[in-house]
Amino acid sequence: MKKAIFYHAGCPVCVSAEQDIVILIGASNVEIVNIGQDRNRIPQAEKAGVKSVPALVTPNGNVLHINFGASMADVIG
Amino acid sequence: MKKAIFYHAGCPVCVSAEQDIVILIGASNVEIVNIGQDRNRIPQAEKAGVKSVPALVTPNGNVLHINFGASMADVIG
Repeated sequence: MKKAIFYHAGCPVCVSAEQDIVILIGASNVEIVNIGQDRNRIPQAEKAGVKSVPALVTPNGNVLHINFGASMADVIG
Repeated sequence: MKKAIFYHAGCPVCVSAEQDIVILIGASNVEIVNIGQDRNRIPQAEKAGVKSVPALVTPNGNVLHINFGASMADVIG
């Protein structure tokens, strides 16, 4: 199965959600991307439909926005 | 492991998120509760910290609010 991708920006809400997601779906099933640091991944996140972080893009391409840490606008700055 | 609980209210956003969650974490690991229908489960959801649906309460008690379908106030009506 294609991996899910969890996008975050290092915010406290993001870190908490990341831990929950890793426990729920397994570390081997999800790629963790900090778009606050890996800024070259921002366009990919936007293209996937990520509007805020933390967000989980499922293997079939749906975006699950989880809680609310920061808008993409805030991440891009 | 204690099961996660996915609370929803039958809204389109809820149904879509439910399918994604079931695929990601496995049907056997999550209890699906429609608090629009099973209204006696509403107090339990509120006590867990659910502010809007769809929401996933993890086995360790954290609440992941996923996208936004409806506020609890709307569900309670």
